Amino acid sequence: MISVRTDLAIEARDMYTKENKRELDGVIVEEEKEGDIKITTVTIESDEAGKELGKPKGNYITIDFPEFTHYDGESMDNVSKVVDNVLSRLVNMPEEKTALVVGLGNWNVTPDSLGPKVTEKIMVTRHLKQVMPEAIDDSVRPVCCISPGVLGITGIETGEIIKSLVDKIKPDIVICIDALGSRKLERVNRTIQISDTGISPGAGVGNHRMKINEESLGVKVVAIGVPTVVHAATIANDTIDLVLDGLISKAEKGKDFYNMLKSVDKLEKSQLIKEVLDPFVGDLMVTPKDVDAVIESLAKIIANGINMAIQPNMDMEDINKFMN
Amino acid sequence: MISVRTDLAIEARDMYTKENKRELDGVIVEEEKEGDIKITTVTIESDEAGKELGKPKGNYITIDFPEFTHYDGESMDNVSKVVDNVLSRLVNMPEEKTALVVGLGNWNVTPDSLGPKVTEKIMVTRHLKQVMPEAIDDSVRPVCCISPGVLGITGIETGEIIKSLVDKIKPDIVICIDALGSRKLERVNRTIQISDTGISPGAGVGNHRMKINEESLGVKVVAIGVPTVVHAATIANDTIDLVLDGLISKAEKGKDFYNMLKSVDKLEKSQLIKEVLDPFVGDLMVTPKDVDAVIESLAKIIANGINMAIQPNMDMEDINKFMN
Amino acid sequence: MISVRTDLAIEARDMYTKENKRELDGVIVEEEKEGDIKITTVTIESDEAGKELGKPKGNYITIDFPEFTHYDGESMDNVSKVVDNVLSRLVNMPEEKTALVVGLGNWNVTPDSLGPKVTEKIMVTRHLKQVMPEAIDDSVRPVCCISPGVLGITGIETGEIIKSLVDKIKPDIVICIDALGSRKLERVNRTIQISDTGISPGAGVGNHRMKINEESLGVKVVAIGVPTVVHAATIANDTIDLVLDGLISKAEKGKDFYNMLKSVDKLEKSQLIKEVLDPFVGDLMVTPKDVDAVIESLAKIIANGINMAIQPNMDMEDINKFMN
Amino acid sequence: MISVRTDLAIEARDMYTKENKRELDGVIVEEEKEGDIKITTVTIESDEAGKELGKPKGNYITIDFPEFTHYDGESMDNVSKVVDNVLSRLVNMPEEKTALVVGLGNWNVTPDSLGPKVTEKIMVTRHLKQVMPEAIDDSVRPVCCISPGVLGITGIETGEIIKSLVDKIKPDIVICIDALGSRKLERVNRTIQISDTGISPGAGVGNHRMKINEESLGVKVVAIGVPTVVHAATIANDTIDLVLDGLISKAEKGKDFYNMLKSVDKLEKSQLIKEVLDPFVGDLMVTPKDVDAVIESLAKIIANGINMAIQPNMDMEDINKFMN
Repeated sequence: MISVRTDLAIEARDMYTKENKRELDGVIVEEEKEGDIKITTVTIESDEAGKELGKPKGNYITIDFPEFTHYDGESMDNVSKVVDNVLSRLVNMPEEKTALVVGLGNWNVTPDSLGPKVTEKIMVTRHLKQVMPEAIDDSVRPVCCISPGVLGITGIETGEIIKSLVDKIKPDIVICIDALGSRKLERVNRTIQISDTGISPGAGVGNHRMKINEESLGVKVVAIGVPTVVHAATIANDTIDLVLDGLISKAEKGKDFYNMLKSVDKLEKSQLIKEVLDPFVGDLMVTPKDVDAVIESLAKIIANGINMAIQPNMDMEDINKFMN
Repeated sequence: MISVRTDLAIEARDMYTKENKRELDGVIVEEEKEGDIKITTVTIESDEAGKELGKPKGNYITIDFPEFTHYDGESMDNVSKVVDNVLSRLVNMPEEKTALVVGLGNWNVTPDSLGPKVTEKIMVTRHLKQVMPEAIDDSVRPVCCISPGVLGITGIETGEIIKSLVDKIKPDIVICIDALGSRKLERVNRTIQISDTGISPGAGVGNHRMKINEESLGVKVVAIGVPTVVHAATIANDTIDLVLDGLISKAEKGKDFYNMLKSVDKLEKSQLIKEVLDPFVGDLMVTPKDVDAVIESLAKIIANGINMAIQPNMDMEDINKFMN
Repeated sequence: MISVRTDLAIEARDMYTKENKRELDGVIVEEEKEGDIKITTVTIESDEAGKELGKPKGNYITIDFPEFTHYDGESMDNVSKVVDNVLSRLVNMPEEKTALVVGLGNWNVTPDSLGPKVTEKIMVTRHLKQVMPEAIDDSVRPVCCISPGVLGITGIETGEIIKSLVDKIKPDIVICIDALGSRKLERVNRTIQISDTGISPGAGVGNHRMKINEESLGVKVVAIGVPTVVHAATIANDTIDLVLDGLISKAEKGKDFYNMLKSVDKLEKSQLIKEVLDPFVGDLMVTPKDVDAVIESLAKIIANGINMAIQPNMDMEDINKFMN
Repeated sequence: MISVRTDLAIEARDMYTKENKRELDGVIVEEEKEGDIKITTVTIESDEAGKELGKPKGNYITIDFPEFTHYDGESMDNVSKVVDNVLSRLVNMPEEKTALVVGLGNWNVTPDSLGPKVTEKIMVTRHLKQVMPEAIDDSVRPVCCISPGVLGITGIETGEIIKSLVDKIKPDIVICIDALGSRKLERVNRTIQISDTGISPGAGVGNHRMKINEESLGVKVVAIGVPTVVHAATIANDTIDLVLDGLISKAEKGKDFYNMLKSVDKLEKSQLIKEVLDPFVGDLMVTPKDVDAVIESLAKIIANGINMAIQPNMDMEDINKFMN
């Protein structure tokens, strides 16, 4: 069957509650508002709940912001501040600790290039602390970063590169940024998910096959993800559901017609999807036309948020001066 | 209603014959094969036929090639040679005549950047003929090119820029390259349409609002187009049709259910499409993931074909030497 | 002989006064300070003075700013404001008038790509005024822009493209941006020259062969130029002069040795330069290593200055919102 | 003093023999010709000779090719074949062994981006051998690659990244590509040095501070370097020498004047250089104007050579098919 799964915990939970008309045991959901920005914390408390939702146990904080954000500098800064706050809740470390920021994804595929674009805007300080410690304030935390590329480019599993580097330079925290796949167009480029559970092999734009988490790396891993595409199969699937739902609502319950519509199963749907997307099926992405500009904006928002969270003794102005 | 129209004459004709079970009067279709490559000439002979298909009277030659072409240098060269042949049929001019090659589209939007990418690879000679005529063989034709950008970038209608330049430098032929929208995924990045009718305001990736043709410019205009995207609305529309067709084939003719399925009209479909694509509707493109690499390959194929067609006294090797 | 000439009026004037120990008749020089920024106005009042300096009669306003500007957002904004002020002195036009911004230079050669990079950041409004006048405030001035490319890319003289477009769309003012060559390393990327005399064929990074000025275009032309390279021949020439001056100062006046040093003429120097730069001579540029980042910063500074000068009813924040 | 040193063994040797009028003991030089291409092998046999030349003991093979190579596809292929041959002499490994190709340098600084550009064109197979061994011929060797970035981008010493990765994936050979600094303009972009001694901290375009060699990594390291810049200080230095030599040749031996010229020492020269290059001194690069295009050509030449050397069972055509 063609997967229409999601990388977002909040979508997995919404699908569960919609289908089962109740919250899943072991899941706690809290919502906050910061002006136009909505912050939803999904806490998966039990392994069973995690299994049900297809996500490891842990905290998933989703930041939803309005579409116009990417067209307004002040709104971008507001989202950066929320990213800073959310990260600061999850990350708590003394000044001398080192952070490694990892930009996952393929820089040659625009919707997958978010991670590498974020690392370009990270305030890198680790080498300065080592090479010219006198030039840099004691309160500045050592930060380093890498964009390891994807398997098809390097021939090396992304997780292997990160694991080897972590073993060598021993950071105290790893922050990974990745482009995700969403179930819903309305989340595309408007949602940032921050979690303390690391990265699982997934339905993202690219395909990482190794887990990148505290268990595999031996240090705390915070993952920041943004859904930047919806797979075309998802669009086709949703269209089928909408058509069937529309017809079912017109049909009389219990009649042949109603039963037939009800009986269209996953296999049939999957065959319809294959037919409509042939010959590309798995490789088709649905993206808004201005994807280049929007990815650039997202990279700025996230990098600013990370910079502020890692360097609590500097404000955005100080960081900008340092960066330019 | 949401348009699911096509920029390809062959698709418009196929839709007509499928619906009407016959060829449209005033349309002649001829097919050739060149190895794996299929060449279809659609000649629209009457204005009435043109009106019916939504395309101006003229010749539309469609080159279809297999998917693996972009991954094999020799196959790419073979398509270039077909482009050369087809262009040479439409363009017939003595050596001293000047060609202007125009790359339409937005260089910042990957699937719309085909035109500008082609112009980068055109063998430009007009200035050499003027500045150092002794350095260049008499048999080399004067060629110049421009990528005028799109309205949102320049604030100037593309047609205005081209018209002003044509009035000034008076080329004998204009060759335009543009990225198109297709009705069918199977044509995306595998079809080149070459026509002698110029460019009409269209359903392409970008939106040109002025005609660029012999009537508007005063010189012959050859248009080369490649469908590089399918709009998401088309995918949704096709999915709906497939679902309905599937159900209709199972229903009993004349029964309530059958009639209901038959009665789903354009308005209802349009509303379903809007619902599934909300909030992006008009701006969503469906592209294969490796769109960057494929557009680069298409640009090489087309530029090589144009270079050979304009410079019949040079072979591909001479041109490559000149270009590097 | 190898030319070591300059595109900057202030350097031409400085060379004259240094050599002749006096100001040239018909030249007026005024200096102002705006914090760290120095503004020097060189007015060439007579054709004779213009001929002597190799520059047409008119106003040349030079803005010199410190090196760290490119590494500090606030300093960049301050230079933008000075660009705004200087432009506003030279340009004086009612709201309904149209401006055409022209980015000269080759986008494929980093130090020559300043012009095209500026046009990317210009607030383009002309099409909005035409297509959806109700969506845009009456006080917004119509602005359009183009980067015509260079002769080697298009096969068309840059001046021809601009002339044809100006004839067609009839702007009320043309603002050209170009990368220049400097005599002195200390000016590279730290000086902006704004003049009301247009662009002359020059010693710049690229080579335009046609004048782009009020006489040729029929509308007022303001030229904004930044020296982004020094030619290697200039470095070699200066080194020779320094060596000779050093030896002369040690030699005894009138002696053989002194006379010999004094007699090293232009021809000999030119041969030395050729020898040291062989085999590249004319094509060697000297640039700082971070030229990519600095050109980006210069493009922002100048685009912001132009946007504010053209749209006096909007402040930088309004313009940024519009642009994003 | 300002360094005018070289990364090329052949230049270091040439400087020694010029100054001492004899070959250095422990150094063997052999020359071959392959059409237009000159291949010079400098073997440094003793540690003393290595110390004298500032290069570790080992083999340094220099490939010199004519300027027009970058403008002619066939000539490019010929140089690739020589690179293949030279590499094959130095590298000798059975089919099952893994190669790691490392692209050193900063992708944001054009003349320093050669290494990363080469890795983009390497035929990467290691993951295929692991993930779908049935899809790939047994005779294909496993190859992986990485461009680690530079210290200022990652905050991590390049050598640390490579060391950690080598420890993890245990390749049998490491091939490093790097942009070098030359003493002579005539070598810029026309010389490829291949050595079995690895990379030393150097005078290159970037600055690596750790050795990358068999001793530090524990596996054989082959280094491929191309001089892509000359530092401006070198140009100034050479100009001074030329001027002094010219004057000395005119002066009468033993006279005051002659003695004075002879007595201009390194300190004086260094001060002259500082004066002429102020305020940029160390950061100025001299590059030909078409540096972007030439670096692209060099990357193709080298990547083709590496691909053929690593995969002796495939010819260039097979590799191109695989790559596209």
